[in-house]
Amino acid sequence: MTFRATILTLYPEMFPGPLGTSLAGRALGERKWSLDAVNIRDFTTDRHRTVDDTPAGGGAGMVLRADILARAVDAHADGRPLIAMTPRGRPLTQSRVRELAAGPGAVILCGRFEGFDERLLEARGVEQISIGDYILSGGEMATLVLLDACVRLLPGVMGAASSGVEESFESGLLEYPHYTRPVEWEGRTIPEVLRSGDHAKIAAWRQRQAEIDTRLRRPDLWERHEGARVGSPSGARQRTED
Amino acid sequence: MTFRATILTLYPEMFPGPLGTSLAGRALGERKWSLDAVNIRDFTTDRHRTVDDTPAGGGAGMVLRADILARAVDAHADGRPLIAMTPRGRPLTQSRVRELAAGPGAVILCGRFEGFDERLLEARGVEQISIGDYILSGGEMATLVLLDACVRLLPGVMGAASSGVEESFESGLLEYPHYTRPVEWEGRTIPEVLRSGDHAKIAAWRQRQAEIDTRLRRPDLWERHEGARVGSPSGARQRTED
Repeated sequence: MTFRATILTLYPEMFPGPLGTSLAGRALGERKWSLDAVNIRDFTTDRHRTVDDTPAGGGAGMVLRADILARAVDAHADGRPLIAMTPRGRPLTQSRVRELAAGPGAVILCGRFEGFDERLLEARGVEQISIGDYILSGGEMATLVLLDACVRLLPGVMGAASSGVEESFESGLLEYPHYTRPVEWEGRTIPEVLRSGDHAKIAAWRQRQAEIDTRLRRPDLWERHEGARVGSPSGARQRTED
Repeated sequence: MTFRATILTLYPEMFPGPLGTSLAGRALGERKWSLDAVNIRDFTTDRHRTVDDTPAGGGAGMVLRADILARAVDAHADGRPLIAMTPRGRPLTQSRVRELAAGPGAVILCGRFEGFDERLLEARGVEQISIGDYILSGGEMATLVLLDACVRLLPGVMGAASSGVEESFESGLLEYPHYTRPVEWEGRTIPEVLRSGDHAKIAAWRQRQAEIDTRLRRPDLWERHEGARVGSPSGARQRTED
């Protein structure tokens, strides 16, 4: 089964864009995944190809119409996860990325203007995903991010070389800092332990650095990590999988 | 002063990419901002144009060399914020986006492989920014996201039309749900209050919806919001600006 992404957007020309280069682009060329960018305007019913209207209750901007979006969605929904990229959504996590990458792909709605008519999201049971707490000009950039994160996990896309990275992230900690040659640069040397050849000591140092950096930079992550460690049954399960 | 973005990357062909279309693209054409994608390989010193080496202490993947990165950075650093996109960074917020958009631009380092030699980040005081808790194939997608978020806030890029959106976000709540015509669709009607014409009631309903959705979908945001409301002087100030 090939991972298939169908993107419903007002800017189909944005795709594949950066997903056409590098790892994802090569994999696209080799048909390890596929991408189909569909113009929402193709599902309009008037000669002006209108997709939006003013917000009920007043206010700035325009809202994407439920009836038009529904036509676009219904023409492509086939059991794949149906996703809308929106800052009102659930924050994207690496574990959701893994689930999606293990599945058949996704149908992804890209918002523009003020967003979607809420009734469409309710009526079609759309999963709402946010890539972060900031505002973009539309859902297209967020879709590129979501797909980039998924595609690199597809079989045969990434070499075995990098497979360790995300395990480190999924342990609930930031990754430890990296160093490489030259051993000395501008008077700064690579930490001695990393040059010791003692694998157990190196692993322990990296674990400690990951903990220190997480506690310092991401107290939110650290709290969840510690909660999972000492706490709940789900936390215990997570530890077993580490 | 024009917002200038200089991107240090191994994939300069990814830019402007999707930033060349839509609002950001038009603004780029009108020189309301500028973008310069620089190939890090242009700063290598050997005939193989090597930018990376194996991680000190062992492990999978490759690490970008401090000495090569420093040459690329030093050729472009000019007082603009110097940023590296990395999952080890501080999570991007709309308020950091606003600060950056109000400034002269940024020099942005895109990581690849396992990341940067930590000494470069320390030695050059690089600000590390993460767009979310997931792993991308490189910093390029994250850079597109950061720039899209900044560029839409530049003077004259977005019409006045959408200027309300991010204030809503910056109040510390998710935005309220949107509706537009048709009034009835698949048996679902636009909430009656939004059709009442009573602006005070509409504002109150939207505020309540924003609170309900934030509490339900983003307990983390809600907790911070409530903390700011009852708590610190900065919280009090934030309320006044609402």
